[in-house]
Order: sequence, then C-alpha cells, then structure tokens
Amino acid sequence: MPTRWFFHHTAEDPFAFPDGKGALKLRLFVPAGLQLCCTVIHSDRYDSPGSEQPLLMERIGSAGAYELHEAVIQTATGRCRYVFHASDPAGNYAWYGERGVAGNREHAGAFQYAYMHRPEALAVPSWTSGTIVYQIYPSSYNQGTLQGITDKIPYLRELGVTAVYMTPIFESPSEHKYNTSDYYRIDPAFGTAEDLKKLVEEAHRHGIKVLLDAVFNHAGDTFFAFRDVLEKGEQSRYKDWFFIRSYPVSQLPTPTYETFAKAEAHMPKLNMDNPETADYMLAVAKHWVREAGIDGWRLDVANEVNPQFWTRLRRELKAEFPELLLIGEIMHASGSWLRGDQFDGGMNYVLREAVLEFFALQSAGPVRFMEQLLHIEALYNDQANSAMFQLLGSHDTERFLTACKENGRGWDRQGTALARMRLAVFFQMTYIGIPMIYYGDEVGMEGATDPHCRKPMLWQEQEQSRELFDWYKTLIALRKQHAILQKGAFRPWFTDEVRGVLGFVRRLEQDKIAVLINNSPNAYQLELNSIRSDKNVLTELLSGLTIRNTGKMLVELEPFGCMLLY
Amino acid sequence: MPTRWFFHHTAEDPFAFPDGKGALKLRLFVPAGLQLCCTVIHSDRYDSPGSEQPLLMERIGSAGAYELHEAVIQTATGRCRYVFHASDPAGNYAWYGERGVAGNREHAGAFQYAYMHRPEALAVPSWTSGTIVYQIYPSSYNQGTLQGITDKIPYLRELGVTAVYMTPIFESPSEHKYNTSDYYRIDPAFGTAEDLKKLVEEAHRHGIKVLLDAVFNHAGDTFFAFRDVLEKGEQSRYKDWFFIRSYPVSQLPTPTYETFAKAEAHMPKLNMDNPETADYMLAVAKHWVREAGIDGWRLDVANEVNPQFWTRLRRELKAEFPELLLIGEIMHASGSWLRGDQFDGGMNYVLREAVLEFFALQSAGPVRFMEQLLHIEALYNDQANSAMFQLLGSHDTERFLTACKENGRGWDRQGTALARMRLAVFFQMTYIGIPMIYYGDEVGMEGATDPHCRKPMLWQEQEQSRELFDWYKTLIALRKQHAILQKGAFRPWFTDEVRGVLGFVRRLEQDKIAVLINNSPNAYQLELNSIRSDKNVLTELLSGLTIRNTGKMLVELEPFGCMLLY
Repeated sequence: MPTRWFFHHTAEDPFAFPDGKGALKLRLFVPAGLQLCCTVIHSDRYDSPGSEQPLLMERIGSAGAYELHEAVIQTATGRCRYVFHASDPAGNYAWYGERGVAGNREHAGAFQYAYMHRPEALAVPSWTSGTIVYQIYPSSYNQGTLQGITDKIPYLRELGVTAVYMTPIFESPSEHKYNTSDYYRIDPAFGTAEDLKKLVEEAHRHGIKVLLDAVFNHAGDTFFAFRDVLEKGEQSRYKDWFFIRSYPVSQLPTPTYETFAKAEAHMPKLNMDNPETADYMLAVAKHWVREAGIDGWRLDVANEVNPQFWTRLRRELKAEFPELLLIGEIMHASGSWLRGDQFDGGMNYVLREAVLEFFALQSAGPVRFMEQLLHIEALYNDQANSAMFQLLGSHDTERFLTACKENGRGWDRQGTALARMRLAVFFQMTYIGIPMIYYGDEVGMEGATDPHCRKPMLWQEQEQSRELFDWYKTLIALRKQHAILQKGAFRPWFTDEVRGVLGFVRRLEQDKIAVLINNSPNAYQLELNSIRSDKNVLTELLSGLTIRNTGKMLVELEPFGCMLLY
Repeated sequence: MPTRWFFHHTAEDPFAFPDGKGALKLRLFVPAGLQLCCTVIHSDRYDSPGSEQPLLMERIGSAGAYELHEAVIQTATGRCRYVFHASDPAGNYAWYGERGVAGNREHAGAFQYAYMHRPEALAVPSWTSGTIVYQIYPSSYNQGTLQGITDKIPYLRELGVTAVYMTPIFESPSEHKYNTSDYYRIDPAFGTAEDLKKLVEEAHRHGIKVLLDAVFNHAGDTFFAFRDVLEKGEQSRYKDWFFIRSYPVSQLPTPTYETFAKAEAHMPKLNMDNPETADYMLAVAKHWVREAGIDGWRLDVANEVNPQFWTRLRRELKAEFPELLLIGEIMHASGSWLRGDQFDGGMNYVLREAVLEFFALQSAGPVRFMEQLLHIEALYNDQANSAMFQLLGSHDTERFLTACKENGRGWDRQGTALARMRLAVFFQMTYIGIPMIYYGDEVGMEGATDPHCRKPMLWQEQEQSRELFDWYKTLIALRKQHAILQKGAFRPWFTDEVRGVLGFVRRLEQDKIAVLINNSPNAYQLELNSIRSDKNVLTELLSGLTIRNTGKMLVELEPFGCMLLY
C-alpha cells in the first residue's frame, strides 16, 4: 500500500557528496524501527526516463529517532538524477524525491546532483590518516618554552604521537595568549622564531608534524591596530578593523566595541569582512608556514569569523601548501564549515560529549552511545570525518580522568575511574578520525575546567600513571600498525544495553577488525560465531592470542575489558 | 511521556537564517498528523544556563509527510543557542537539539547559530518586490531584432510588466544563441550594442528593467578560444579553458572534450575552475552592465558551473552594482545556490510542476497542491523566495495553455482549458516571488516543447485572446497596487479536497488578503465568518464589491472562479 513516511535527504553535503572519482555517496534518514528496505534508483541527469538503475542501500544503523541508510552511486559524468524507494515487511511503500515523499514515483519527483566539481576540493592532506595528535599548552609543558617542548620530543616519540598542536605562542600579555599583541612575534616568554624553527625541524626529524593556533576572530587590546583606535578614535586608520559601536572608544565599564564572548574588553573582535584586515591575517597565516615550516593551523573560534574569509584562506594556503592541515575550532555541529571549501576537519567536542556520557558519567548506555556515534558521523562527509580531532578533553574542558572520578555515579568509590578512562582511550584509538590527546592525560593528570586543566605537566615518574602511559603507547602502536584502524569505515555490530556491552566493526575493503567494549563492572561472555567470520582463526590484537573457530567460540571480556579481533 | 519523534532541523539556511537585523528565523520539520505543539527555548550562546526564553512556534501547515513550524527569535548579539520542545495532545513530548531527539533536554543538546555575518549578504535588490517579469525569446518577438523589441515597449507598458528578460543576444550561429561565438558582440541579426543601449534606455524611461542571459557553463564551438584549441590542439594556449579528454581534439563522431548535456559537440563546456577563463567571463558580465546599463543577469545552467565562480561573480558585481539582480537557472531544488552568496533567486521550475499538476493536468488536488507550496517554499530562505522567478512556462517547456488543453483529462472537451489557465495566472499573480510571463502566454499562444514553444509572437489582434490579455492586465495592476500581494507572507487557509477548492492568505504586518481558488467546474459556496475578520467590511478586489459582515456571510465562487478578499 502506498504510504507516506517522513524521510530526509537533500542533494547536498552531508547527504550527497563525492566519494572518490565518479562516485557519489548518498545518505538517507528514515524513521527508526520500521524495518525499511531502501533502494535508490539513479541515472545520468541527461538520460531519458527508462535508463535508471536500482541500487539497494545499506542500513548502517539507528541514529536515535531515525535510521541511516547509505549507498554509493557510480557516475561517469558526475551528474546524477535519483529517487528513493522504501518498503516495509507488510508491503507498505513510498517514493521520495525532491518533491517529497509520495505514493507514486511521479509525485515524488527526483533529486538532482547537478555536477561534481573538483572532487579534490574535499581532499584532506595525505598524511591525515594515521595521525595521532598531542595537544600542548605551552606555558605548562616543559619550562614553559619552545626549547622545553623541543627537549621533550623523545618523550613524544616514545608515546608514539605523530603530530603536536600547540595553543597560541605569539606575543600576548596573558598566559593562554588568545589575546594576541603581535602576530609576527613569538612571545618572548616562550622563545624566538628561531626556537620555533628548531622545534619544527627536530619534530620533523622524528616524524612528528607541528600545528599552531591562529586567533583571527579577535585580537588582544594590545594589538597595534587596536591601540591606534584606542588612541585616535574615529581618526584612526584602523577603526574599520574592528566593530566599534560608538565613539569615543572606551573599555570600561562596558566596551564600546564588539568583543569575543560577553564583553571581554581585552579581546576586541576583528572585522574580517574588511579586506585590509583579512589581507593582514592571511599574510600572518602564510608567514609562519613559510618561515617555520609548520604543517597546519588550528583556527580559533572559527564559527564566528566570516566564512568567506575561510574559503579565501583555504584557497590561498592550499594553492601554496597543498599538504597543510586546516582544523576549525567549532564546539558544536559544524557541517557548513566542513564541505571542502573551508576546513579539513574540526575539534570534535560533540563526540567528546557522547564519550563523556557513556564512559565517564555513565549517564547513557550502549544503545544511546552507538546512536550518537552514527548521528555525529552523519553530520559530516567522510573526508571531514577522517580529519576530525577526536578529543577526550582540552584546555577548555575538565580533564577526562577527573570527569570519571567526580561524576561516576559512585563508581569511583569502587575505583573504576581509571578503568573507565582506559576504556574511553581504547575507544578513541579504535574509532575513526584523528585521536587527539591532551597533554598529561596519558600520565593520569587530573583537573577541573580552566585553570585546573592547564596545570604544569607532571614529569616526575612517581607522579605519573605509568600504567596509563603504557596503555596509550600500546594502543597508539596498534593503530599505527593497522590501516583498518586508521581509515576503515565504522559499522555498528551489536549492543547489549542491560549488560553495558557493545561491539563495532572497522572495515577496509575486505578486511575487518571487530572492537568489543565492556563498559560495566561485570565480566561478559560472547559467543563469537555470531561474527560470521569466514576465517577459521581470529587474533586478539591486544593480547596477541589466537582464537580458533571450532564451531562455537566463547570469549570472555573482563569487567571494563575490551578486545580487538582481527 | 518522553518519546522520540523524527524531526529535522540544522542551524543552517534554509532551517535557520537571518530575517532582518537581530532576527533569526527558524524552521522545524516534524512528522505530519501528530498535532504537535512546538516551542523553541533560546538564549545567547554565551549566556549561562537558566537565561533561556521559550517562544511558541507557528504551525505553518502540512508539507506532505512533514509539517512546517516556524519562529523568529530576536537576538541582540546575532548568536544563538536553542533547543526545541514538542508535545502532543496525549501528553507525549520530546526535546530536539543538535544531538538529536531525546526524552530529556540534556540528551538533546542544543543547536547553535554561531554568529550572524553581514545579514545584508542575503539582501536582494530593493526593486525586486513588485517586479513582474516578461520573458522574450528575441528572434521570435518582433522582427527578431532589439529595435523590434524596443518598438514594443508601449505594449509591455500596457500589459503592466516591470522587467524584461531576454534569452541570449550575443553573436552565435544558432537561433537560440546558447552557443556563443562572441560574448562581446550583439548578434548582427539582432542589431548592435547601440540598439541594446537604446532598448535599455527606452525601457528605463518607461519604468521597465532589462535582464540578459549569460551562458558561462559552455561556449559555442565557434568561440575564438575553442577555435584555437581545435586548430592547435595541445599547443593552444586556451586548452585549459575547456575540459579536453584526449588529443587530437575532434568533434565527431564523439567529442573528445566535455560538453553541455550529452555530447553536444557545438557546446564545449568551459573550465571555470581556470582563473583565466573565470576572469574573462567576469569581465563580460561587468562589461554589459557598464556598457548598456542592464539591471540583471540570468545565468544559464548555473547548477553545473563551479559555485566558487558564482560567489566571486556576486561579490565583484554587487560591489560595483548593488542593485543588480542575479538569477540562476537551476531547474531543480536549488537551495545551495540561494543562501546569499551566489544568486538572488532562481527559475522556479519546481513550482511550475506543482502548478501544472493542479491547474493544467488536474492530476493533483488542493491538498497536495497546498502541501507542495509549503514544501517548495521551505527549500529556500525568505529572501530567496522573494526573488524566485515564478513561471508557468518558458522557452524550455510546453506552453501552459497547451498543457491545459492536451492533458486536461478530458476537461478540454468541456472547454475549460482557458478557464484553468486563467486560474493558474490568478494564482501566479497572488502568490509570493516574482511572477514571470513567457511572451505570448498573455495572448493565448499555444505550442508544445521546443521548437513549438518558440514560435513568433502573435501580433495580429484577431489571433490574440484579448480576454486573457485583459485578465493579465487586471491581475498585474492589482498586484502592483497592493504591497501585501508583492511582499506579504504566504499562509495556507483551507482546502476542500472533494470540491477542488482552496484558500490562502497573504499577510503583511496587520494587513491580510485572502485568496480563494475554485479549481472545479462546479460553483462553490463559502461561509465567510470562518475568516475571523475583525473588520465589518471586506472588499472583493477583482469585482470591487463590498461584503458586509452581518453575522453569516456567504460568498459564491463560480466554476473555475476566484476571489481576492481584502
């Protein structure tokens, strides 16, 4: 019977995006729980009716109120016309095209993907997959200097990370340095441009990339252009570099100009709509890549800067440095910045919330966690997902171990905080994207939100959790060893809501790694023939143990235990 | 009871967009038929929890499988954090934020509209509202020349249109001239640059704007750059102006280069990713505005040209000519081109299909038609909707009257085709956007698709339908007289599926005009106190009749009749 379900799709990223040459990936949202079988019927836009090909879509899984279905269409011309068909087990069906859901195909119309423009615009730097980032808050790391950081490269190398991202290092009167005085000068407390060059060279020698933090949303009130405005008011030639609300310009009691956040007088918002200001900041962005050979920029408060500046920044930087990584700091859903014309990836705070809920707070079970993973993945195209910084914490959040201890609904009384943190790290290192480690997390540092999360790095071995450090080291090594863990697709496998267990699969062509997570204080037995492996031997990668297929295979997960089956 | 319905929203156009200074319009899609009451709870992004304000959303109506709810949030800072709440009459409820639909607010998360950048980027030219466009196919209009068109300006003035859009007039070997030889030369068969200037001057003197057609997706094979490639092959300095697949370049049997549509050898696709080609075409676009003072461009096959070219074209053209109108030819859902950084509006072929179905083919009733109107409106932000060319036909479609006659499921045997066309024109002239009249439709011209729809204009009065002409004239005059019809919001009022009648309202601040359409061969009586007017007198604008509110008011719509109640 023809029926009408509420579906959602648009012929636009992240519902339709190029997925390699001549391939178009489509995503369809349908209501959850209807057991729908979905097909996409497609043809070239200029082919006459009758030339369409049907393609069964893959049900990826439930993302909460909706289910995600996907298909990859091959299109030689890069132009596509398509309509969806869905049916349920009772024989109800619907068509869905750009004119909506309808009982017949003609009423549904068709979606049109007009033309694939330069799919390479979606390309992220080739070194992205396999990268593991380590975030450093420079004033708290080692002697608070760039030289101090350089001295710790052997440590980073031992840990296994392949990139370092440092919060701002340019001249600024504050400790955090997000209110820049001089974009062209390294803060004297940290060192000199020479020190930065040496750091980058030394890091590169050890196979470690270096990313810096660019603050283009606002400057410091000590920035020369703003000082000029403070001094000369309406006569300043820099007055249009900012958003001055009224003259005379004053900072107190309430700034007469737009600022970052709520009236942060020492952080005047930059007018990046002004081509002169945009030119200035673009020159800064180029300068440090040319001068110091850095490998990427993390762009602060990227969501509040005019997107037209970012498209220009990307175009000009990528033309000169095609392998430069551009990461936007956007703490919420950031699809519109991640469509290939602005950033390669973002800081995935939305994922962090899901991870926090499941592992630290235990306020969500496996079902919701799995749904959240799909919901968050479906916010972005695959390329952007591969370049997301998957973080457990940062200089702007409570440390993850602290969250495990303080918010664990009593679990910490049982001493499970560290076990739950280990599990979250296991998830991070076996999931898609670029794992990002916040300095000190790897040795068990604790701290509530700013300023507590920004305390000096613990370098005394007796203060460090070597158990955690070794765990990170092991997992990083495993991730680096297995291309599937770096770039395999993510697929839900199962959830056991009552027992707090879930499994997912990473998939790269024919290869698969199954990931098992027991987020509970009880042991868990799993019958492994449900994995339907066509191989007779599985290897558990953490232990190196081999499991032979002798009909029924039982594996046991320890309390808060995990496994990687290859 | 907490529940999970499948909703859809993203903090992006067309679900969230600036609607004047400090105002953010939000749209929410919810499943149809649940009688949901929706509220949006919002605050500034930097305000602490607890400062949120609830705002009841307006249920606009059903758009088919989903219902459209809207709200306009006032935000002084241009930054917003918000979450939706919905409840049904049975007390079931759900929260919806960027983390999905959930039974509690915390799990739902919140949407974030990061920052309103230059809301004026969404502004369409100030003259757009109130415009009525007349499309001319130059070789068929009057003597096939620009002078001939100039001679007909008194006719256009009598009809009442306020803008003329002409298909291409630049040098080209074909009649339609979509394969350009020389972008800088008027086709000699049409006249000279002087003739164009005279046409524009004369039109402007009579309050009529002039739009030209720019073909930047492809050139003609007689275009100098392509001739050079044909001649010199790989040695041509223009080889990267096109997408050459292999050398030597040949046109037959299959072109060895990318073309418009399927192997149209005489229309080689232009490589607009090449900055040199983009520069050339941008100079063309500027030239004719400077040289002849035209008021806008309609951009051919806009959906297949790299969007980055359009953003540049808009930026540069609008900087010099802020009142220039830019219309993209995109024959399908075109949201991504209409977000304020590319075109002001598009050619609304999707709307034409709905109008065709309801009035000409009668293959859809009032319910589906009303749903389609909301579905199509919800594809775009309000500003783009105000600049859509709402067409019944064009040089690329069957003429509307022909569709009424040939596809009327037998109705034409009853001689209703003209009546149904009249009704469609009535709808067009009372609906949102910019009505576009295809030359000759106003005098009853007929013709199937190309070439039949491109026949010479009928100038002999005895061949013209003066009845239709007068109808157009009356409706155009009414639209020009009433600002509500030009820029009022559209709201469904009622549908009578069985009797084929519908009503909608145009609303501008406190003023309203109610529109009634009887799309059936039977008369229809309507009890008017259901309009809940607080005034005691209504005026029917077509007849000028006054209806007094004496308790119960009955109005009668004739077969295929209509009314405009003010």
